[in-house]
Formats: sequence, structure tokens, C-alpha cells
Amino acid sequence: MSYRLLGSILDSASRRAPARAFRLVHHTALMLSVAAVLGITMQSAPLPQPLLIGFVLVVAGFFLVEWLLRLFAAPVLMQPRGRPRARLRYLVSFLGLVDLASASALPAALLLGVPPEQAFAGAILWVLKGMRYAAGFSLIGRVLRNERSTFFSVLVAFAMVLLLAGMAEYLLEGETQPATFGSLPAALWWCIVTLTTTGYGDAIPKTALGRMVAGLVMVLGIAVFALWAGILASGFATEVRRRDFVRTWGLVAKVPLFRALGAGVIAEVARLLRPQRLPAGAALMRKGEPGDCMYFIVEGEVEVALEPSPVRLHGGDFLGEMALITGEPRIATATALGETQLLTLDIADFHTLAGRHPELTGAIEAEAARRRKGATASA
Amino acid sequence: MSYRLLGSILDSASRRAPARAFRLVHHTALMLSVAAVLGITMQSAPLPQPLLIGFVLVVAGFFLVEWLLRLFAAPVLMQPRGRPRARLRYLVSFLGLVDLASASALPAALLLGVPPEQAFAGAILWVLKGMRYAAGFSLIGRVLRNERSTFFSVLVAFAMVLLLAGMAEYLLEGETQPATFGSLPAALWWCIVTLTTTGYGDAIPKTALGRMVAGLVMVLGIAVFALWAGILASGFATEVRRRDFVRTWGLVAKVPLFRALGAGVIAEVARLLRPQRLPAGAALMRKGEPGDCMYFIVEGEVEVALEPSPVRLHGGDFLGEMALITGEPRIATATALGETQLLTLDIADFHTLAGRHPELTGAIEAEAARRRKGATASA
Amino acid sequence: MSYRLLGSILDSASRRAPARAFRLVHHTALMLSVAAVLGITMQSAPLPQPLLIGFVLVVAGFFLVEWLLRLFAAPVLMQPRGRPRARLRYLVSFLGLVDLASASALPAALLLGVPPEQAFAGAILWVLKGMRYAAGFSLIGRVLRNERSTFFSVLVAFAMVLLLAGMAEYLLEGETQPATFGSLPAALWWCIVTLTTTGYGDAIPKTALGRMVAGLVMVLGIAVFALWAGILASGFATEVRRRDFVRTWGLVAKVPLFRALGAGVIAEVARLLRPQRLPAGAALMRKGEPGDCMYFIVEGEVEVALEPSPVRLHGGDFLGEMALITGEPRIATATALGETQLLTLDIADFHTLAGRHPELTGAIEAEAARRRKGATASA
Amino acid sequence: MSYRLLGSILDSASRRAPARAFRLVHHTALMLSVAAVLGITMQSAPLPQPLLIGFVLVVAGFFLVEWLLRLFAAPVLMQPRGRPRARLRYLVSFLGLVDLASASALPAALLLGVPPEQAFAGAILWVLKGMRYAAGFSLIGRVLRNERSTFFSVLVAFAMVLLLAGMAEYLLEGETQPATFGSLPAALWWCIVTLTTTGYGDAIPKTALGRMVAGLVMVLGIAVFALWAGILASGFATEVRRRDFVRTWGLVAKVPLFRALGAGVIAEVARLLRPQRLPAGAALMRKGEPGDCMYFIVEGEVEVALEPSPVRLHGGDFLGEMALITGEPRIATATALGETQLLTLDIADFHTLAGRHPELTGAIEAEAARRRKGATASA
Repeated sequence: MSYRLLGSILDSASRRAPARAFRLVHHTALMLSVAAVLGITMQSAPLPQPLLIGFVLVVAGFFLVEWLLRLFAAPVLMQPRGRPRARLRYLVSFLGLVDLASASALPAALLLGVPPEQAFAGAILWVLKGMRYAAGFSLIGRVLRNERSTFFSVLVAFAMVLLLAGMAEYLLEGETQPATFGSLPAALWWCIVTLTTTGYGDAIPKTALGRMVAGLVMVLGIAVFALWAGILASGFATEVRRRDFVRTWGLVAKVPLFRALGAGVIAEVARLLRPQRLPAGAALMRKGEPGDCMYFIVEGEVEVALEPSPVRLHGGDFLGEMALITGEPRIATATALGETQLLTLDIADFHTLAGRHPELTGAIEAEAARRRKGATASA
Repeated sequence: MSYRLLGSILDSASRRAPARAFRLVHHTALMLSVAAVLGITMQSAPLPQPLLIGFVLVVAGFFLVEWLLRLFAAPVLMQPRGRPRARLRYLVSFLGLVDLASASALPAALLLGVPPEQAFAGAILWVLKGMRYAAGFSLIGRVLRNERSTFFSVLVAFAMVLLLAGMAEYLLEGETQPATFGSLPAALWWCIVTLTTTGYGDAIPKTALGRMVAGLVMVLGIAVFALWAGILASGFATEVRRRDFVRTWGLVAKVPLFRALGAGVIAEVARLLRPQRLPAGAALMRKGEPGDCMYFIVEGEVEVALEPSPVRLHGGDFLGEMALITGEPRIATATALGETQLLTLDIADFHTLAGRHPELTGAIEAEAARRRKGATASA
Repeated sequence: MSYRLLGSILDSASRRAPARAFRLVHHTALMLSVAAVLGITMQSAPLPQPLLIGFVLVVAGFFLVEWLLRLFAAPVLMQPRGRPRARLRYLVSFLGLVDLASASALPAALLLGVPPEQAFAGAILWVLKGMRYAAGFSLIGRVLRNERSTFFSVLVAFAMVLLLAGMAEYLLEGETQPATFGSLPAALWWCIVTLTTTGYGDAIPKTALGRMVAGLVMVLGIAVFALWAGILASGFATEVRRRDFVRTWGLVAKVPLFRALGAGVIAEVARLLRPQRLPAGAALMRKGEPGDCMYFIVEGEVEVALEPSPVRLHGGDFLGEMALITGEPRIATATALGETQLLTLDIADFHTLAGRHPELTGAIEAEAARRRKGATASA
Repeated sequence: MSYRLLGSILDSASRRAPARAFRLVHHTALMLSVAAVLGITMQSAPLPQPLLIGFVLVVAGFFLVEWLLRLFAAPVLMQPRGRPRARLRYLVSFLGLVDLASASALPAALLLGVPPEQAFAGAILWVLKGMRYAAGFSLIGRVLRNERSTFFSVLVAFAMVLLLAGMAEYLLEGETQPATFGSLPAALWWCIVTLTTTGYGDAIPKTALGRMVAGLVMVLGIAVFALWAGILASGFATEVRRRDFVRTWGLVAKVPLFRALGAGVIAEVARLLRPQRLPAGAALMRKGEPGDCMYFIVEGEVEVALEPSPVRLHGGDFLGEMALITGEPRIATATALGETQLLTLDIADFHTLAGRHPELTGAIEAEAARRRKGATASA
């Protein structure tokens, strides 16, 4: 099997058919095996134990093969490409270690004599393989990294409140309730259960002063929630804006209409457009619907069902602007012929742009007028 | 009964009297029947069972009639209008299926021999009919759609933490507390109760290590809350700005004063104005009150109670600007004669606008001076 | 007692000595009487019952006198002033009714034969009198009003989830746990306790399917939290910006330096300055400290302790700009002589402003140079 | 020991080796002694009691010495420097009192005859010493101070709801459940446990009306969370922007390229750049990686591994701009030679800047071209 084929199958970001098929098999195996592990630890599972055990072992074998293939294909899989020692880097990377553990931990534990139920429970660890495929993780990770110092301060404040309130309840309740507040670790258990507003009810202060401290701890628990939420909300707003801009900027720069306007306008336009990807056969707009946005085609082909004969638009063309200018419904249905990358500009931003850059909307209107004359109307 | 009349009664967005009357009846029937269902399942309800059962059956009949009428009137009700097969589209739409289920599930269940109490409990499903009328749902839906990838990543992270922490507690507590941690599904139940900070207290770790893991799970639970809140807060800020702009832009473009200034200024003004709808007889401003905003009339008629004789203002007129310019209280009371659509501009934005577009405030001041001369003062 | 004197004592926003003294007495009486009521309902309060009862009755008498005086002085107290029938408006206003209830409910209940403990518990209602004095309520109210449609939609969604999940658990758990899930109202009690993540633990699903529904309910509970937090966060950001701008705009327009620059620059400057109020004797800046902001005096007098003789600055003057220009520490201590209203401009905004409006910072630097020559240095 | 040496050891913000070593010892002692105190209060600690007690006493002695040294060195440690009576100010400052309490409370308590377990528990108080080192505290403090009036209003509303709901449940449930709702303080305990959604389950309303009030209290509890989160989110967004700007502005003004462009552009550039600090030996960029940002060196030295011979860049130089202009991968690896302060400009902001200030990117491109000719290529 060649490097290239393996790479195209195992690449977690590829949109091609072999990669998609592999991901489907991988995710199905992962989820079914986790369900099987749950059944193995139950007294009376809905399926017979040997079947479940057999299935989990087969999946472990599959993950072993996957790990070997990823190791072999590391030179074409590891980012950034072209750097030396790709296989070594894969071996010691976090996901590489997760793959290795998923492949080998279960058989190793069974061979070493760990009780079977516990060994199989360890197979739960392979849910970590899912991290390779969750695209939003990197955004969340970046926000947490940007805000780490404030986040850490809240954690330090949380620990201080925990220790001080635990101490207070130990002194106040320790004598009357020795089982639940009789030592500092016990009081800390009460305190974390209360500070996170979990409230199991296994330890409850009884004295008036102890209850006042407890009430304060609960209110501070809410404040910690609120602080984190506030920090993260402001961090997300910044980071999402940044990510969307980078993604859109690359696409906008490919459209000749915008490229002609220079880097300054491209940066501004990129703040307003939203990338959208359509599968083959999907309808962009339908005749008779109200129009609230227009489309720029970056890659792919779109067919507009005009009378008497349909028209095909390609990368660099735009459509749907008539509805924004006249306010009337779409005059034709448009369908993506293959997988198509679009940029959408909604009506609000169209008019903002029209105000600031009359030359741009002028170009759009000129093109639209030219099309209408040439019997190439846009919907 | 004609299409048109039916359409005007059943249209969920219409502000006309027949539609309002229908909505009042519909919502009252919906809420009373849910209350009746609650009573039916109780041992000792405050009202006799036969009365409650009879009422729920009557409401089911009413919903059956409503479904038939909606099906019949689908060609004038379904958005976008004018597309073919409107009845079929209604039949298979989500709200159409909810209407059908509300109309037929209860009699069908009773006929099929389902125990009556369970059959009636199923009538609770018709609360879903309320989704047709809640305007904010579409905004929430759009935010969730925009943020779906990040939202989904938090859900995946949530599931990973759930499985890994459940596994840890199963291994740590399973032997000493077989009833509550003796299988992975049992440990997962503990884990979701703790990770969401619900904390029933039916399963509580006892070992020192188990409690440390539990403390970590609680803190991560708070972090998941905070992550979602942060993602949604940033998503709402973006989407609300966009929605308000589209709504206001359409209204601003109807006011001649703004239309004269061109698309660029309209887009900017639309960011500052807020639409407001007043019922007939409502007072916009009262003589002697401090004035913190001015009004532009889009549709409807407003009477200003000036001495010696009141003055009527119509669509395109504005009022209340004197208080913003001079800082003095309102000099007259103004009342809406019929239902009136206004745009309000508050004092902060008035001064921002005055700074950037002196020609606009110049036009307002010129008009105000002209009015004062012509004994048509504004409050 | 004259109107004017009463008005100056009872005006909840006044900063003058009689009003402050009245508020001190009022708030102390309010808080002590609430504490006394708590004691009255206890078996063994730390103070004798007759003392507590007597104190609460005295406070009720004080509130009766306050209500009569507020009624009498309504023409000078009710906003907006100068409108007729001020006493009637006070009588039927929310705060007027609260004042009346605080004054009369307790004696009325005792006369009508309500058991004393319950009559006294009703005195808790007078905490509502505190709403008159909490300035932030109006901001919170305005945000809730702006966001009411989205907020209401979340509440409707919350009610739908509540009813549907309650129905599901009633059907799933009702037979095996008739005491806690045997009727829909009982199941709804479980559901609201779980959906808000309170989790008393008095009703807990036992079946596998029931627990899955419960897990979903908990996660949706988090999502409802997050939705509300997100809606409110975006609403607060908008409303706080608006409020601060209005407040600051009024102050900025009083400073001659800014007034000379025209309405456009005032609006921009008002976005950057922050109002600050200092009591007599407070130090604005201390010699030798690093300087991170400059001050504009709106009202009041400030003394700068320069050698050889101190200098006094008044409304319209500014100080502290040297540290921003040179980056060196403060060269003198400055103290407010009476209560002083300032506007502060921090170093970041000073440089932003310097970039956009060189004429403004030019004027500041010219004035600073003139002062240094005239031996009137600024710190 | 000289002032200067002591100052350099005890300065909590210093990055030099002696200060770092001291912090390492201090933090380790602090954390180990807290762990030891936890052990002292347990029946069966993993280590013998005398060992733990001895260790805590040694740490108390260490903190006594630290307090004496800080008092002695106050003239060089207290901010702002150069003000008189530095030792007195340290003695009465919050951190000074914490230091004193950490040093003396434990021996004093033991001498005064406090039971040993309680005396040692008091040693938990010294976690407050950690506040000196947590940089994010000042940001959180500033946000809380800015939002204090709104925050306080939510707290007042919280207290009102608490008292009114407690009163309602006392009246509704007091007779049937005298142990848990029989007095107002008991009902308030239920209410705070419920309003914070903690839900111990020790007191639960039983009547239908009581449960409706409880459901309302839970929903209001969520709303309080959401209100605080919303207030803080909007406050953080404002304050973080302000802090980052001040920090970056100081660094940007040191780079000659920007200084030449005047204060206006510096303020704008400072909004886009992010400060970054690299330790000696860290790699800025690696050959073959995609480039998403460029770097400006403020202080320190960077080596670019170009062929045939490496090049050294110093404060004021920039690197990495080629990848932003051409979109190709990095052409060389760059490493910090000593601790280096950088400013990074990411690709999105680079293009925004290029649009608004062509003269700036022109200067960058000219310098880049000059370098390439002089065989001084940039990666």
C-alpha cells in the first residue's frame, strides 16, 4: 500500500470518499465498543458477555492496525509536512500516545493478570481518540490559552475560598458533627460539594454560624461560575472574530471582483462575508422565496434555472443580488452542480458596504445590468 | 368559508382582530387542557374527573378542526407563498405533524386500548403547538446553528469527561459500594448527576481518591456551564445586532428625511434607531417630562396636544427633537391615534449622529424652526 | 413643616445632609426590624420576645409617619414634577402601595385576629421599600425589557421541556415509584428540581430509560442557564454603554475645552471619559506615584500641593496631564477641597484621542506649558 | 545583608534568579504546610503526627523571618517607591497584616492554650499570602469595582427574593413541617440552599402551593446566575481591552518603525499587536511550518538559521513578514538567544493594517527587500 493512498485514507481533515469511509468505520467501532464495555461491567447486560468481549477485542485489534498504519504513514500525515523524524514525532505526540494506549492497553492488562472487568473498563480511555476529529477543540483550546492567567486566578481564588471556608466549618461544626466535619479533609469535601452548588446532602451544617458561612459559600459558588462565564464569553468573542476573519480572508482574495479593490477593501469585506459549503444538488435559492442575501462563488459550478434555457455560473461569478437591490422575490431557482464553496453577503451587510464602497456595488450593478441584457438574468 | 378569511384567522403573525381572537381562544384552550391533564393523573384533583376528561376531549376535537382548516388553507398560509403543493408541504412539515398528532393521538390511543391515564398524559405533547407563536425561537435557533460546531465540541468534551470520570469512579469505588458504583452504567449515572452539579446524593464517593476525582468533576461541570454561556453570549451579541439591523433598515428607508441622504447614511442610521410599535391611544411623551429621545413616524398618526389647537403628524414626520436640542422638558403631550409604527432615536445617538452628519441634524433643526414659526411646535 | 424641607429630607436621590441622615435612620430601622421579625418566629431567640415585638411595632409606626409625610409632600417628590394629582399618583404607584402596606398591614392583621407569629412574618414585606434606593435596578430592568422577547422564548422552551420530560418520567417511572412519579404534578416537581440542577434527591428515576431522560434534562438545564446568561451578557454590554454615554455626555459638555470642539468631538470624547465623584479631603493623586490618567474638573475645587505655594483649580480646569505626556511620576499631591465631580481620561484613551484629534491634545499641551511658565505646574 | 539584595529576593514581580528561587521555596513551603495541617486534623494521617506538627512549626518560623525581612526592606519593596514611612505602611497594609498573622497566629494560639488541632487549623489562613503573587487578581478586582453598583443591586434583589420566599414557605409549610420550616431562620436556610440551586434535600416543601413557590425560587436562582454572568462578561470585555492596550502601547512605542508613524498610528497598532515573552532557546518559528504571524523584537536577540550563515536580529528589528506577504511556509528557523520580548502581529491584523496604513506595510516590504538583497533573508 502506498504512502499516498494511506495518507488520503487516514487524513482526519480530508473530504474525499476513502477518508470519509474510514472515519465512518472508525467512529462506529469506537461508539459500539464503548457501549459494549458498559455492558461487560453490568450484571445482566442485554447481550451475552462473550459476544461483547469478543467485539471489544476485535476493535482493539483494529486500533492496533490503525496505530501501525499511522506510524508508517507519519511522513505524509504529520503537520507541518516535510520536517524530519515524522515517525518519532508521531510516537511521542499526545494523539500518538492515545493511539498506542488504545491499541495495547487492553491486551497488556489482560496478560498482566488485571481482573477482566477492570481491564475492559480501561478501554473507555479510547474515547480520547475522538479529539483528533473535533474541530472546535482548537478554538476552545486557544481561548483557554489566551485567558489562562485570569482563569488561573479564579482557580486560585476558588482554592483559597475552599480552604478558608473548610477551616471555618471545621472549627464551627467539628465538635457537634465529628463524622462529617471532624477533620479538615472531611470539611473540604463538604465545601467543594457546596461551592460548586452540587449539594449531595451528606454533610449539612447545623449551627447558626455554620449555616451563615454555608450561605456565603453558595453565593460565592455562583460568583465563581459567573466569573468564568464572563471571562470565557469575552474571550470567545475575540477569538471567533479572529478565526472567521482568517478563514474568510483567504476565500475573498480568490474572487476577482474583490481582488481588484485592493488589500484594504478585502480586509473590510472579509469581516462581512460568511463562507458556506454546499453539497452537489443543494439549492442555493428557490424561485418565489424572499431574498435576504447574495452569493459569490469561490469554487464549483451553480446552475440557475432561467427561461428559456438555464445558465451556469462558475468561480468568481456572483448571483442573487437582484433581490437585494429591488426587494422582490427570487426570480429563478439556483442549484449547486458539484460540491461548491460560496461566500454569502447578507442584506444588512450589503447595504453597509454599499454605503462605504459605492464603487463595489456599482461594479455589481453594472455586471447585473450587463447580464440582464445578455439574457443571463440572476435570481 | 373563503381561503382569504381562513388565512386571516389562522395566520400566526397577523395583528388583525380575527387572528387575535383565534389566538386567544387557542392559547386558553391549550393551557387549560394541559392543566386538566395534570388533574386527570392525580388521585384527588380539585375538579371531578369526568369534567376534566370531557374538557380535554373537546379541546382535542377543536385541534382536529384546526388541523383540517390549516390543511385546507395551506395555499395561503405556507411560507413562501405561491409555491406548489402547499398542502403536502404542510402535511410533512414539523408543525403540521405536531398539529396532526395533537388532533389524533388521544382518540387513537383510547381506541387502541392504551390505559386512559397514559393516553391522556400523551396530550401533553400538544404544548409543542406553542412553537408556532414564539417569535424568539428563530433567533435562538439561528444562534445555535451558527455556533453548532463549537457547541458540539463542548458536548463531545462533556461526553469524554463523563466516560473517563465514570470509569475512574467505577475502578475506585466499585468494590466498596457495589450498589451505586458496581457497574459502568451506574457510575455514569453518578457522573452525570455530579457533572451537571445536580447532586441528588443517592451515590456519593467515599474513598479519598474517589472524592478528589469527584471534586475535579464538579469543577469541570462549572467550566462546561461557563463555556456554553461564553459561546452563546458571543453568538447572541452578533446575531441580535444583525437581526435588529435588518428590521430597522426596512423602516428607515421609508422615512423621506433619511432616504434623501443615500444608502450609506441609511445603513449607519439604521444601527442607531430602534423600532417601537404603539397601540391606539398610547402616549409617546407627556408634557413636563424630561425628554431622552425623539421619534420618527413610519406609519400611523400622532396627535400633539398643543395650544391653542392640537396638531396631527403622519408617516414621515418626526417629533420630540426640541427636548434633545435644548435639554428642557417636553412642551406638549403626544398620543397615537391608531396603531402607530415609530422609530426612536435616543439622546446619546442623536449627538453621535449630529457629530458625524451635521447635514442630517441641520435638516431636523430647519424643519423644527419652520414648524415653530407655523405655530406647529413639537414637544 | 414646609414642603421644601420635607422634600429635601425624603428625596431618595439627594446628597444633602438631612436626606442622608433620614436614609441612615430608615435603612437601620428596616434591617433591625427584619432581624427582630426573624427572632420573633424562633423558639429561643437571643433577645426577649416582648422587646422584639415592641421594636417591630415602633418601626411600623415610623413607616406609617413616613407614608403620611410622603403623601403630603408628593407634589415636590413625584417625578416628573409639575404634573397634577401628584398625591393620587403616589397613592397608586408601586412604591406608594409598598409604603402603605408596610405602614398598615401589621396593625391591621393583628386587629383582624391573624395569629401574631404570622402577622409579624408579614412585616418581611417591607424589604420591598429598599427598591426605592437601589440605583442599579433601573439598569437591570431596562436590560430585561429590551431582551424580553428572547427571554420569554427561553421561558416557553423551559416550560415545554418541563412538561414533556415530566410526561416521559410519569410514563416510565410512574408504575414502579407511585409515591414520587405516580401523577403528572409529582413528576413535574421532580422535573423542575432536576432541570434547575437543584437536585434535592427526594425523587430519583430508577429505570435505565428514565435515567437517560433525566441525564438529558440535566444537560438541557445547563443549556437554559447558558442561554439566559448569553442573552443577558449581550444585553448588558449594549445598555451599559448607552447609560454611561448619556451620563458622561452631560458632564463633558460642561467643560469649556471640549465645548469649543463641537458636538461631534464631544460625543467621541464622552465615550472615553469616566465620571468620578470625590468626597472632600480625598486625594486624586500623590507625589511620586506613577500616573495612569488625567483629570478634568466639572464641579468643585482641587488643591495641588506645589512648592513654594499650593495652587487651586476649579471647574473647567484639568490636571495630571504631565505624567501622561512624559511618563514620569506625579510631581505633586492633589486633594479635593469640597465634594468634587471629575472626569478621568486614562492613558490608553489619551493616546487614542491624541492620534485622532491632535488639536485637542495640542490645546492641553499649550495650557500645560502656559501653567508651568506661570509657576502653576500640574502634577 | 543589603537593602538592594533583599529587595531583589523578595520582590514578587521580579524575574531574576534569586527572586525566582525564593518564590519556589515559599510556594512549596506554603502548599506542603497546608497539606500537613490537613493531616494533623485527621485521625489516621499517612504520616506520623509529630513530623507534621514539626514541619508546620518550621514553616511558621520561616514566615516569621520573611515578615521581619519584608518589614526591614519595606523602603525598597513598597510601591510607590520613595514615599516616607514605608515600614509603617507595610505594617498596616492588607498583605502586611496577612504576613504578620501567618508568622505569629500559630505560636500565639498555642501559648494561649487554644486546643492544638484548632490552633493548627488556623494556619490555613496563610493561603492568603498567595494573593501577593496572583497577577489576575487585580484585573478581577477592577472589573468587580467597575460593576459594583449593578452587582450590588443583584445582591439586594437576591436578598429580597430570599426574605420574601422564605416568608412564603414559613407561612405555607410551617405548620406541617415545624422542624424544617417552623421558624423564619429555618425557612431562610431552605431558601438559600434552593435559590443557589445547591439543594441538599434536608428541607423540602410538601404542599402544592409551597412547591410552586419553590419552583419559582429555583428559576429565579438561575436568573441571578445569569444576571451576574452577563454583568461580568460585559465588564471583562471592557477591562481586558483596556489593560492589553496599556501594556502593548508601552512596548509599541519602543519600536522605531512605529515611533516614526506618530502617536495616532501607535494607538491603532497597539490595539492589534500582542505581547509575547520567550525564554532563551525557544523557537519562534520553524522552517517549513505555515506562517500565520510576524514578529517585532522589543528587547533581546533572535538568531535566524539562514544559509550559508545565521543572522542575528535585535530590538527594533522584525521578522516573519515574508510568509504573510507570499503565503509560503517559513524559510528558516528562528530561535531566541536570551529571554526576548516580542510583539506578534497575526495575518488577519496584518492585512487590516495594510489596508489602512499602506505607508507602514510599504516600510516593512522595503526593509524586507533590502534584507533579501543583503543576504539577510527573513523566514
